Amino acid sequence: MPSDKTLIKNIRKLILASNTPIPFQKGPALSELATIDSAFLIIENGRISSFGPEDQTPECSGAVIDAHHGYVMPAYIDCHTHLVFADWREQEFIDRMKGLSYQEISNKGGGILNSAKKLAALPEDELFERSAIRLTEAMKCGTGAIEIKSGYGLNTENELKILRVIKRLKVHFPIPVIATFLGAHSFPLEFKSDHQGYINLIINEMLPEIHKEGLAEYCDVFCEQNFYSPDETGQILEAASRYGLKARIHSNQFTHSGGIEVAIRNHAISVDHLEVCNEEEIELLKNSSTHPVLLPSAAFFMNQEYPPARNMIDRGLGLVLASDFNPGTSPSYNLSFVLSLACIKMKMLPEEAIQALTINAAYNLGLESDYGSIEPGKIANLILTKPCPSLSYLPYSFGNSWISKVFIRGNPDFSSEWAL
Amino acid sequence: MPSDKTLIKNIRKLILASNTPIPFQKGPALSELATIDSAFLIIENGRISSFGPEDQTPECSGAVIDAHHGYVMPAYIDCHTHLVFADWREQEFIDRMKGLSYQEISNKGGGILNSAKKLAALPEDELFERSAIRLTEAMKCGTGAIEIKSGYGLNTENELKILRVIKRLKVHFPIPVIATFLGAHSFPLEFKSDHQGYINLIINEMLPEIHKEGLAEYCDVFCEQNFYSPDETGQILEAASRYGLKARIHSNQFTHSGGIEVAIRNHAISVDHLEVCNEEEIELLKNSSTHPVLLPSAAFFMNQEYPPARNMIDRGLGLVLASDFNPGTSPSYNLSFVLSLACIKMKMLPEEAIQALTINAAYNLGLESDYGSIEPGKIANLILTKPCPSLSYLPYSFGNSWISKVFIRGNPDFSSEWAL
Repeated sequence: MPSDKTLIKNIRKLILASNTPIPFQKGPALSELATIDSAFLIIENGRISSFGPEDQTPECSGAVIDAHHGYVMPAYIDCHTHLVFADWREQEFIDRMKGLSYQEISNKGGGILNSAKKLAALPEDELFERSAIRLTEAMKCGTGAIEIKSGYGLNTENELKILRVIKRLKVHFPIPVIATFLGAHSFPLEFKSDHQGYINLIINEMLPEIHKEGLAEYCDVFCEQNFYSPDETGQILEAASRYGLKARIHSNQFTHSGGIEVAIRNHAISVDHLEVCNEEEIELLKNSSTHPVLLPSAAFFMNQEYPPARNMIDRGLGLVLASDFNPGTSPSYNLSFVLSLACIKMKMLPEEAIQALTINAAYNLGLESDYGSIEPGKIANLILTKPCPSLSYLPYSFGNSWISKVFIRGNPDFSSEWAL
Repeated sequence: MPSDKTLIKNIRKLILASNTPIPFQKGPALSELATIDSAFLIIENGRISSFGPEDQTPECSGAVIDAHHGYVMPAYIDCHTHLVFADWREQEFIDRMKGLSYQEISNKGGGILNSAKKLAALPEDELFERSAIRLTEAMKCGTGAIEIKSGYGLNTENELKILRVIKRLKVHFPIPVIATFLGAHSFPLEFKSDHQGYINLIINEMLPEIHKEGLAEYCDVFCEQNFYSPDETGQILEAASRYGLKARIHSNQFTHSGGIEVAIRNHAISVDHLEVCNEEEIELLKNSSTHPVLLPSAAFFMNQEYPPARNMIDRGLGLVLASDFNPGTSPSYNLSFVLSLACIKMKMLPEEAIQALTINAAYNLGLESDYGSIEPGKIANLILTKPCPSLSYLPYSFGNSWISKVFIRGNPDFSSEWAL
């Protein structure tokens, strides 16, 4: 019987990311990051069994992997994605480049409604295949746990189709896949003048069915001008809570939408986006248990101002970073690029940004007991870098391919039948 | 004897990039890109021998590669890099993030002088090894020809050391490596108050030696406030011309430095950067044979305004794009990311940006007869993409890994002994 023990030797630096206070958002700005220079790490049965300084490397009867002086860090955790979509929307990108506004594109039938139309036309099996390919690609870029939202269905049949695809991804992939119901992503055309009609559909038809099939852990609402008002958002979150779904919402992407208040009132685990966020709103977050989740790839792609991450940290907030991977406003699943944007554009320190993409994101998804840091007993979802001169090199070296291997449950050769 | 013939079949789109007018900068804005939908391509002896529509795919006695409906395009050509450097400078990036200015970092011993100090201390063999690793990584990202500048030597011994390393890269790598002498990258400390003393050294000592050893094709000068004045730039370019070196200069990165005028007067092949470029300067370029080379990764990393690419094209200029790969202001060799920046940040159309990175860049380096487009007889340096829905997907899908294979002289499994 082959041994399932693996020794990784010659690690130049082991990034533990294990020093986050609980709850992290009450802690200080995390400019410190727990690390060990010159280290070994041992994996057994897919979990981290031990690690320590190189001069204490034990004999190992199993496989030995030479890190060649690369760094080893926890795999990324992506806590905000819309990965299950029918098709890319690159034509809208070209329209926007040529000068059309987000609103004009929406009026042309673009935007979320465009995704909904394409998704309605796609059989569930094909939607699963396309999503499985994307998830495989994301994992190759270092993602070791992921949240996926519905929201391109906008009716019961198609919202359930997406959530069932997410459920199949859970079964077929060896990483945690967390499902969020985002029926309130937009209003379908037929309910444009009857918001309450669609909200009733969400509350009376979608939520009970989702509950019955056990299809989601969270409920999300796009609380934004021209989308869901704070009152509408509150109504949906309260109903979701009765079905056991915790809240996480989109807010303040374009305006001070009032979403932060409603998120806090509904004990939402997080309020995501915050491109537009003032001092009073930061203060509200500071006095709450709601996590700020920042999505700098969306600001990059939409040519918006970035969220005020530096100010948030300096004011004492902990932060979470995620990709917002979706075909309209953030068609990228690459969290190494998010790491670069966090530092280059938002002046987060490398130490802060790495924690925001690993252990803080694990807390955000309730995965902290098994994921997000290097600690004995945690699942061995790890990134091994190519030889690396320093921690700062990781965000600095933007666009370059510095990942050498991604370990999934200790397996450095993870592939799926959906690999391209 | 094994056949050296390779058929690539099932190509969804073949991007020929063969319709650039000569000289390209006199042509219209190239919103058209020559392509063939559903195609095959045959490589013989490292060169493209034929291609055409899929239904005419011939029998092939050699190797067959299934493109699985990916696109095939010419490999990128990177016409502006500083790839031969001793070490990364990520600490300066952190200093900048914490609020220090470029000038303050320079005063602390950072910047180009920091690179020069590290380079002086590094033996030539080690400099070559490090550079060979970087070039291998760049090639894996699709770079099929490259220009490399000296400029971290700043004295005769070390400028020659860099140029000799570039010469060794030429010998050891199967792609064109073009050498540019950039002794006038900064002033060394000991000549801070004696500019003419250092310029004399360049003219009387470095240029003759470079000529004797045949170490460079081009001469570059950093024409910018606090660096080289237009008069100093002209003096150096004129001397270089007497030694057979053609001119290409850095200009208008931070100020209207007067470099465009001096570049044109000296028949420079290109003027590179142009973050700061007004209507009059665009008009000057339009009436010249000097190419504008834009380096959006540097603007991205330095948080500067991007060059006015859209206006330049709309005014009738052809453009070239490059990476500016260097450890201080653009530590990225990834030209797919440059493609994304060109479209997302500078509103270039995908068709324009692809040509700016391939055939236009080939003209810029004088490589157009063998590289930069897909034409019978040209060297088969090619990029095969993963399955791809449209041309616009390539820039749109920023940060994602959409390259499936890079062919170098027809070889899809290129590796070097310096692969990480």
